[in-house]
Amino acid sequence: MSLIPSAHFSISVIVQAADSASALQQITEVALTQEAAVNSHKVLTSDNKITELEIVIYCHNAEHQTQVVKSIETIEDIKVIEHYDRTFKMHEAGKIRTVSAIEVNDADELSMAYTPGVARVCMAIHEDENMANTHTIRKNTVAIVSDGTAVLGLGDIGPKAAMPVMEGKALLFKEFAGVDAFPICLDVDTPQQVIETVKRLAPSFGGINLEDIAAPGAFEIEEVLKRELDIPVFHDDQHGTAVVALAALENALKVVDKKISEVSVVMTGLGAAGIAVAKMLIQAGVENFVGVDRSGAVYEGRDDLHSAKQWLAENSNKDKKSGTISEVIVDADVFIGLSGPGVITVEDVKSMADSPIVFAMANPTPEILPEEVEGLVAVMATGRSDYPNQINNVLAFPGIFRGALDAGASDITENMKLAAAKAIANSVTEEELSAEFITPSVFDKSVALRVSEAVKQAAIADGA
Amino acid sequence: MSLIPSAHFSISVIVQAADSASALQQITEVALTQEAAVNSHKVLTSDNKITELEIVIYCHNAEHQTQVVKSIETIEDIKVIEHYDRTFKMHEAGKIRTVSAIEVNDADELSMAYTPGVARVCMAIHEDENMANTHTIRKNTVAIVSDGTAVLGLGDIGPKAAMPVMEGKALLFKEFAGVDAFPICLDVDTPQQVIETVKRLAPSFGGINLEDIAAPGAFEIEEVLKRELDIPVFHDDQHGTAVVALAALENALKVVDKKISEVSVVMTGLGAAGIAVAKMLIQAGVENFVGVDRSGAVYEGRDDLHSAKQWLAENSNKDKKSGTISEVIVDADVFIGLSGPGVITVEDVKSMADSPIVFAMANPTPEILPEEVEGLVAVMATGRSDYPNQINNVLAFPGIFRGALDAGASDITENMKLAAAKAIANSVTEEELSAEFITPSVFDKSVALRVSEAVKQAAIADGA
Repeated sequence: MSLIPSAHFSISVIVQAADSASALQQITEVALTQEAAVNSHKVLTSDNKITELEIVIYCHNAEHQTQVVKSIETIEDIKVIEHYDRTFKMHEAGKIRTVSAIEVNDADELSMAYTPGVARVCMAIHEDENMANTHTIRKNTVAIVSDGTAVLGLGDIGPKAAMPVMEGKALLFKEFAGVDAFPICLDVDTPQQVIETVKRLAPSFGGINLEDIAAPGAFEIEEVLKRELDIPVFHDDQHGTAVVALAALENALKVVDKKISEVSVVMTGLGAAGIAVAKMLIQAGVENFVGVDRSGAVYEGRDDLHSAKQWLAENSNKDKKSGTISEVIVDADVFIGLSGPGVITVEDVKSMADSPIVFAMANPTPEILPEEVEGLVAVMATGRSDYPNQINNVLAFPGIFRGALDAGASDITENMKLAAAKAIANSVTEEELSAEFITPSVFDKSVALRVSEAVKQAAIADGA
Repeated sequence: MSLIPSAHFSISVIVQAADSASALQQITEVALTQEAAVNSHKVLTSDNKITELEIVIYCHNAEHQTQVVKSIETIEDIKVIEHYDRTFKMHEAGKIRTVSAIEVNDADELSMAYTPGVARVCMAIHEDENMANTHTIRKNTVAIVSDGTAVLGLGDIGPKAAMPVMEGKALLFKEFAGVDAFPICLDVDTPQQVIETVKRLAPSFGGINLEDIAAPGAFEIEEVLKRELDIPVFHDDQHGTAVVALAALENALKVVDKKISEVSVVMTGLGAAGIAVAKMLIQAGVENFVGVDRSGAVYEGRDDLHSAKQWLAENSNKDKKSGTISEVIVDADVFIGLSGPGVITVEDVKSMADSPIVFAMANPTPEILPEEVEGLVAVMATGRSDYPNQINNVLAFPGIFRGALDAGASDITENMKLAAAKAIANSVTEEELSAEFITPSVFDKSVALRVSEAVKQAAIADGA
């Protein structure tokens, strides 16, 4: 765990004191001695005698939170009334709600929204199924489906424990692209059961966003559902990551003035995301690519490869390089990490070609930290919000589904994904573009708009 | 179809005219000659020369709508700009939305709602599954599950065509009881597949409301899910109807001053709802009960009964009456219909005991119309909003789930349903109670509050 105090380990402490200025000063000092940080405060109530203050303090882990509260409790003249963990508080009762899109104020309106009037809409859909795409929530609603087998970097924690992530995703869908999304976490044992269940659920949804499903099952699930459903299916861990990584790479290459067809790229981590990034970069023009898993470089002829890695072996590493990442990274122009902390060293980076590009995307701890390679790399990007150049899926998935739904697309094609990457890359203007600014801010809402428009046009062009 | 102009066949006609008063008068006259009715109008825009008016006209079916528009188009000096069916308009893009329950304004808040902070909540649930009931949408979210096999009175119209009903239900859940509900319409072939799918979905929901599923499959689905899931499962067509019917009967008996243990009740229609009503009335104290299906009265020894009807045979009709409804209705105190139009005649009603009670609940057309038996019955109730004494599930299901969720109940027990019926009955005060007012208005939001409180207390008493 990081020892930097952070929002996600922050607490709210509510105290009573006679002298609020002095109380705040003392609490700030106590926090500082504990290496915690007072972030903000507000007066809740105040009369002549007693002020009630709420103070937000950033801590660095749960133990630290307890310790900070204890220290505050020892301050004389201050009474701690209540304290809570702000992250848990935010998740109480879940993070999304279902609301009515229409007003039903009287019996007449009820007779249109519900029985008997609703029967007319039901029968119209029964006679023409396409009406379900315009006259039900299918028009704008995406299921965020997970089996909880590969949640964030936490592994197979199960469907209930996956819910907070899927709810968060639903929130981002709405916030960035106006898509109604609903979390569906499945209690299943096999990829086949995921496939079967999603097919059964499909009448309620206009799109399926697969999320945090372990490879290689995730590949099969996506492949079969894409083939068998007539609505867009998108495994965000794979393709969202791939789209944003490609966008970041395109801009990084502009910074170092190299061409995508001429650079050599090495990558560690060949899970669902890694394979998708590899495919997308190759699709986009990378000719010299080497993927590395725990057993070393993937090359044609290696005899322990499952089908996705076999595809990679056949479509990359033309020189059939073998060996560890330290061996194959020598003279590479680009390193992309989707593996784990410590996978590459400073020496590895030093062995790369001139003006190296390093995307260390492992979450929460990158393959190598930006501060370790400062001055050695031309462009550095991570998945984190606390460094420049964040490669974050939220730049892609809301706009991609917005565009697909707007186009009434039945699929999300390669061209739609390439268009999304291009739109994200172009969201950074020539003037803004620099080694420290290759990806737009995740809070820039114009990105989703640009992505959705590009995806919609590509969908129409593809006849999807 | 009824020839009375109604809201659910209403149209909006947008017209331009130089003289708006004269235009409105002419349109009103034209509508009247067509037996349509102008319900309201509003001025959209107006300048010196031209006024744009929107006029709402109630019609009696879709053909009639077309005919009315055509007639208006023939009026001189009026230009019809646009017209639309108001019911279909209301359902465009579906009737519910998913929104965020929290604000995420900056990177710090995002780090608590989503990665990396969300991982803390995920791991807390992984370590203690009960946390999912407090820190995810499970706390307040119910799935409205249908396979589309028995939608309203429309039959097996399929899952997509069932969506508008389930969305309407979700809307009512929110409106009346603040429950977040989400429509899940399943593309399945068997009751076993419904069971299997709902079990897989259960991690996302705090309750399951089964809806519009054909009998006898619906019985098995509910029975197995109640047994195997640790969240409340409720088949509204059965138990919602039963709860409201019992409430209405209790109040009707007060009106005629008879005791539940002393009256004889005959019922037509032994589908999912009918069987549930029968069980509930017997549970509540009806000792003299005869159920009638298409083959006549159900009695012990009849050899064509499936298990639910067999239960009824063993627990009712002690005199083993056989025969048609016309035969067994003679001298009955109460008739309850959950079958179809025309199932009983005026002669049948005349053959009943003094002060007969008739609940003709078939939808949309009752077993017998109130106007046919005016003066012959002591109390008349239907499922319709355009007659007094509407027996409508919306009086029950929102409050029942609200109470169950508030109690953290793992089941909805018989006592919880009986408590709900009592709370609905008691929502009509002694002063209000009359032959024309045995059920509270469906728009009386205090009913759901009363029901939820009663259900919650019953849940606690039952240890559910």
